[in-house]
This record gives sequence, structure tokens and C-alpha cells, in this order.
Amino acid sequence: MRIFPIKLPLIKKGDPLLNIIIEKVLKMNIKINSGDVFVVSSKVVATSQGRIVPYVNISPSKKAEIIGKKYLIDPRIVELIIKESDDILGGIPRVLLCIKNGVLMANAGIDKSNAPPNHVVLLPEKPEEWAEKFRKSIYDLFKVKIGVIISDSRTQPLRLGNVGLALAVSGFEPVIDCRGEKDIYGRTLKITWLAIADNLASAAEILMNKNKKNAVILIRGAPVTLTDRKIRLTDMCIPSRECMYMRVFNNWRKTNFY
Amino acid sequence: MRIFPIKLPLIKKGDPLLNIIIEKVLKMNIKINSGDVFVVSSKVVATSQGRIVPYVNISPSKKAEIIGKKYLIDPRIVELIIKESDDILGGIPRVLLCIKNGVLMANAGIDKSNAPPNHVVLLPEKPEEWAEKFRKSIYDLFKVKIGVIISDSRTQPLRLGNVGLALAVSGFEPVIDCRGEKDIYGRTLKITWLAIADNLASAAEILMNKNKKNAVILIRGAPVTLTDRKIRLTDMCIPSRECMYMRVFNNWRKTNFY
Repeated sequence: MRIFPIKLPLIKKGDPLLNIIIEKVLKMNIKINSGDVFVVSSKVVATSQGRIVPYVNISPSKKAEIIGKKYLIDPRIVELIIKESDDILGGIPRVLLCIKNGVLMANAGIDKSNAPPNHVVLLPEKPEEWAEKFRKSIYDLFKVKIGVIISDSRTQPLRLGNVGLALAVSGFEPVIDCRGEKDIYGRTLKITWLAIADNLASAAEILMNKNKKNAVILIRGAPVTLTDRKIRLTDMCIPSRECMYMRVFNNWRKTNFY
Repeated sequence: MRIFPIKLPLIKKGDPLLNIIIEKVLKMNIKINSGDVFVVSSKVVATSQGRIVPYVNISPSKKAEIIGKKYLIDPRIVELIIKESDDILGGIPRVLLCIKNGVLMANAGIDKSNAPPNHVVLLPEKPEEWAEKFRKSIYDLFKVKIGVIISDSRTQPLRLGNVGLALAVSGFEPVIDCRGEKDIYGRTLKITWLAIADNLASAAEILMNKNKKNAVILIRGAPVTLTDRKIRLTDMCIPSRECMYMRVFNNWRKTNFY
């Protein structure tokens, strides 16, 4: 398995990101192979979509004011976080722990870094559709089947540092079910799923995070199962009621965090 | 960055794992480079250390009986889980959510798969020492500085499937502090740490989990910062009182889960 970066120029609102990536690949003389996986940073997708919001003109609600005061976050940004979240579990100073599209996320994925002053970057809109469009364009142009991941950074409980997260996937099965396989003693494994998309996003994170200009990473030779079916977020998520962590924590949950 | 597997024979209790890996590397004609990172599955380290326990002769305590009944786990295995854990947060049927050495782990890392019948595999003993010994042996033999990760599988909240976890590291900085670096607009990033060891463990997980015999993975060309200092678990962990997730969840916590 080989992993290498594709450096992009600074992406701005309205830039034709898909064409820019394809041009860059052609310029680098990269022959795209069947089974190649392109990992694209959610930040550049969001930026090209214009998901950069000037938060200075937002009027925060009473709820946003209360939460902002308690957790030391600008209430105008809190207002955005409330709007972008499905659920807010609680907070610590400067961070709210949210669920967005079934994924645990600090501040609903809203980020000040790599945004112009007084602006924040929201997560991309419909990342699955973007991934799907990219995959289909590559197929139309080069007649090869690839995988696409829109990736984001996330932290893990009790661990220091960012790992990768697959926000959206197209072209391959994001989770491999190994339950039918045998262990080394020949017994059938009971529960073993491999989060192949998240692991590939983490492999890409190493080269992305070391250099912010590495907004696209190409992974070659990964053991992915290609598919044309539409991959949904729910293919990578466990609902709260079935998740070991959330079942334990929800058992403790208080009704109101602020 | 390149990632490739080093297949091992079936490892048994007492096998000289370190020598077996080195022999295999020599046999495969792999010239070890400075900065290469070897990711070794915790399962083979534990197995070679004899951390395979027949649980049938254990007499469970009253507490283990109560927990086992409530969560549908063999009380003899619960007894082992209690012994191996620093803390048990709660449970769902068949799984207890534990903290061991500062890491969140299902069943304190005790695993029935890839163990002989009526046995379980515990996590390796002193994995940092094993990693350190491996690194030093490679240096003594080939005069090259490498990195070593003892890796385990873990799940993430609300996500389906296993990702990699660095249980122990030797020879490189497991987390890179990017806080002094600039974002694409030239502003200093406030909080950005890169969990390079966990991301490398996840990259390795892709090839390990697809084939259980891939117990060692070699990663070449990773942007690691080599060091001779002793890496401790605490270098990769956030204490509970500083972790966003645990601060939110502990805020809800009930005193007694069983």
C-alpha cells in the first residue's frame, strides 16, 4: 500500500475543486489505477462550496447567550453550532460536544483555523454527493473505478492528537464485515468489523496534517472492495442505542447540560 | 509512505518473537532503513509472553457474579476483567467498558478470539519494554534507528468497525505538537496535535485485520521524529479530567454501574 500527497494551490470560494484536482493529477503524470483511493480534506471541499461564514452579523438567541457564557464561546458561534448540530451532549470551556449526522464532533465541526479573520468554516454540504461526483468524473475521463473519501480530523476519548475520520465515501465499502472469517484457531470470529474508510482517512491524516497544503492524498494498493452502490453515512455509523460507549454514557445522561 | 506486511508463522507461548521477526525480515531481503516503523500486533506479543489464561479454574468473586449476571458475561472472565482494569465505567450485554492504563477499552482488552478454547488472551505485559528491546536489538544488529509500535484494535464511539491504537511506542515521538505552526492564512494554530502513532497503527490495521497472519507491518517513509527518549503511555493519553469527552460524560456519571 502506498500513500502520497497531491499538493493543491490555496482553494477559494467558488473554485472548481474537482477540475483543479484532476488537472493537478494530470500535471504530476499520475496514471490513475483501478482501486486507487483519493482522500480529500473536508476543509477544501467546504471552502470551494463557500461554507465560510462571517459570524459577526449573527444575532444569537437567548439559549446561545447562556451556553456561550457558560462555556466561554462567542454566542454568535454558539448560534451556528446549535444550527449545525443534531444534538449537543455538553461542553467544556471553549468546546461543545455535538452530534452531527450521527458523528460525535467538537463544535459540530465548525472551525476557525484555516478561515479568514472573523469567519468560520462549516463542514461541507452534502459531502457524499461531492464524493460521488468526483468518482464519476474520474470514471468518465479515465474509465477507472476509484474510491473517494472526504476526510475530517477528530480526536478520540482519552487520547492526545487528531486522527482521521471518513465524513463521506464513494466507490468502495467503507466497513468490511469479517464476521464470517476464521480466527487463527479456525473458529468463526464473532464480532470483527474493519473500519477501512476511517483507517484510510487516518493514514492520509499523517501526510495532510504535517503539511496543510496536502489537501488531497492518494492511496494506492489498499484492500478495498469497489462498489457502485451509493454509500450512506449510516453505513459507517452505529446508532446511539446500539453503541457501547453511548449506551454506557446515556445511562448517566442528565437532561439539560446548560 | 509505503506500508507492507511481514507474515509470521503461528506464534506460541514462549516463542522468541523478536528473533522470529528479525529472521523473517532477513529472509525477505528487507534492508531496514532509518525511520522505518514496525507495527507489531499486541496479540502476538501477548501470546509469546504466555498471556493466555485458562479461565475455567478461576473462582469469581461476589462482585464478578453480580456483574456477570447483569451483563451476560462468564463471571470467571468478569473476575479477570476486574483484575486487569483500572476502572469500569459500565456495560452493555457481553461487554464492559473499562479504562486500562489510561485507555478506554472493551473488557480491559481481554479477548477470546485467536485464543485456544476455554482460554482468553490478555494484553501484553509491559509492552513499552518489549518495544524498546526490539528497537535496541535492531540498532545493535543493523545500526539503524527505527520506530516500534505495539498496536491493538479499538472501536470509536458511534462508528462501526475497528481502527488501530498504539498501546506502546519506542523510537519516535508518538504525538506531534503542531501548535506553533501557521494555518493557510498565516495565523498560528491554537490546538492541533497529530496522533501520529495512532494514525500509523490505523494504517497498519488495514493490512493486519484483512489477514490475521499479518502480525507485523512495516511502514516506510512516515514523517516521524526519531528519538531515543523513553516514550510513556502518558505521552499519548489525556487524563480524564482534561479530556473533552470524559469531562462531559463524567459530569453525568452515576456512582455505581451494577
